[in-house]
Amino acid sequence: MASFSAESYFATQAPPPDLEQLVDGVREFVDRHIQEGRRIVLVTSGGTTVPLELNVVRFLDNFSAGTRGATSAEYFLAQGYAVIFMHRQFSLQPFSRHYSHSTNPFLDFLEFEEGRDGSNGTPKINVSASQTTHLAQVLKAYKDVHTKGLLHTLTFVTINEYLYLLRSISKELNRAKRHALYYLAAAVSDFFLPTQKMSEHKIQSTKGSLIIEMDQVPKILRPLVDEWTPEAYIVSFKLETDQQLLIPKAHQALQRYGHHLVIGNELHRRKFEVVFVSPSKAKPGKFEENWIRLQDGQTEIEAGIVQQLVLRHTEWLEATTNAL
Amino acid sequence: MASFSAESYFATQAPPPDLEQLVDGVREFVDRHIQEGRRIVLVTSGGTTVPLELNVVRFLDNFSAGTRGATSAEYFLAQGYAVIFMHRQFSLQPFSRHYSHSTNPFLDFLEFEEGRDGSNGTPKINVSASQTTHLAQVLKAYKDVHTKGLLHTLTFVTINEYLYLLRSISKELNRAKRHALYYLAAAVSDFFLPTQKMSEHKIQSTKGSLIIEMDQVPKILRPLVDEWTPEAYIVSFKLETDQQLLIPKAHQALQRYGHHLVIGNELHRRKFEVVFVSPSKAKPGKFEENWIRLQDGQTEIEAGIVQQLVLRHTEWLEATTNAL
Repeated sequence: MASFSAESYFATQAPPPDLEQLVDGVREFVDRHIQEGRRIVLVTSGGTTVPLELNVVRFLDNFSAGTRGATSAEYFLAQGYAVIFMHRQFSLQPFSRHYSHSTNPFLDFLEFEEGRDGSNGTPKINVSASQTTHLAQVLKAYKDVHTKGLLHTLTFVTINEYLYLLRSISKELNRAKRHALYYLAAAVSDFFLPTQKMSEHKIQSTKGSLIIEMDQVPKILRPLVDEWTPEAYIVSFKLETDQQLLIPKAHQALQRYGHHLVIGNELHRRKFEVVFVSPSKAKPGKFEENWIRLQDGQTEIEAGIVQQLVLRHTEWLEATTNAL
Repeated sequence: MASFSAESYFATQAPPPDLEQLVDGVREFVDRHIQEGRRIVLVTSGGTTVPLELNVVRFLDNFSAGTRGATSAEYFLAQGYAVIFMHRQFSLQPFSRHYSHSTNPFLDFLEFEEGRDGSNGTPKINVSASQTTHLAQVLKAYKDVHTKGLLHTLTFVTINEYLYLLRSISKELNRAKRHALYYLAAAVSDFFLPTQKMSEHKIQSTKGSLIIEMDQVPKILRPLVDEWTPEAYIVSFKLETDQQLLIPKAHQALQRYGHHLVIGNELHRRKFEVVFVSPSKAKPGKFEENWIRLQDGQTEIEAGIVQQLVLRHTEWLEATTNAL
């Protein structure tokens, strides 16, 4: 029954081999947007895996398609933020999420121009007219964001990659000071299996039942708030299946880590309502709750979440700037 | 330390709610292709999940992007088979696999026709010329297969959905008799957590380490071969990370279940070589091995695997037909 501190975690678990290269890209992105005076948000998205073997065949995973993160990233871009999108490999991404292979496969809306399917001469392929209106909006936003270099995407798979990336990125993002926003929407495992305890090969299944014992992942919010990026505005998420636990768990997190906001969601209601839990300004030591609900005519609750969040970031920036 | 037989598994674990509806679709597909005298292959693909809670937040998973299954399905279609493609939700699919969001995002190769981005009038979107040649091939095959109704796709997520679907489909496919081929490429968990042992809500992480004890999944190949679909040609897969275990494990499976072929792959070499292990025709009670390797000029080993397999299915069909 081992509990790792962040320090002992990073001292005993090896960094991913491509970490430095990934950080170089982030550094360039952060510096460019600091120069241009733009706010920067780090959006984490999707679930982390916990490999059970060194040659990975089996792993523990956290349920998340990455909808919250990918959708929110689009709204942050629309609000003028530069976005570092750090997501689980193959989870949804901003823009392309509208055309996931399963719900809206893109091959279905491509057509050969009449008589030009390539049987005889050069083929020509168009997007079918019925799909053009929606796709044109998405494509325009996508091309605009890429031309202006407003979106920087990084992928992780394992909990180890997630933890190392978050630490490294936060040290870079620290230079943006209060203009940095953290939107930690990834579904991060609470448990992991240290490399030192993993078996080298696929666990064999001849010996009856399988017993796995895992250690706790260090509470990374503490060093993030205290050491790595002390000036930024930090938002964490709580997902619970028991609605009763949502508010007490959010209070607990704010008390422990001293960050700015917990967004609480209940698994089955998360597309319709979430709750913003934050330290009360009026009553020091107390907390306040604000529910954000999907409005009539809205299709995505992330529109309201991001709008409210940008307002809070702005107010906080103005308040802290005036206080200096 | 519980070991479930197939019978006790299905007696204690509830079927997925949409099972009957899914089976109706399979029945129609199978009957149509039997009437048209076409061979039918069931391709299973991707990994199964093992939920750890009733309100799923955490689950155990098996590593698989679904490349082997999705690629092989295309080659089976090219060889004239009708394909039932039973795959893990969000794993790769035939045709669309060429344009996965991460490696070749399709938004990158769409272009507005000059002056028609929708700012002023109706937008028009084309596939950029550089991408047209490859995409035209994929799109033509895709449209052809869909027009002719040669591909039937079903998705699963959990091990429970996989087991129930496989049983139900095999009972339908049984009517195709020796014209049915099973290509069981999915990465299926060896362990599961019976519903009766699951906690209702998200496992809380305050109590130190997490201990999970799981039961063995029943060996489904035995009833598949003996009861559900006794006349079909059945191919199973073995994935090992220890090359030494590959052949002995394949022998063991063939001895236990009495099916036709095990395709063995080692995790890191699986895109370059696989081994076909089957009962020897010359020496009864013995086995023979044939290695299939990626040839010069080939990009996908599945081309060779499927070609060899179709040959074997044909020879076996002719031999068993002559023997009647």
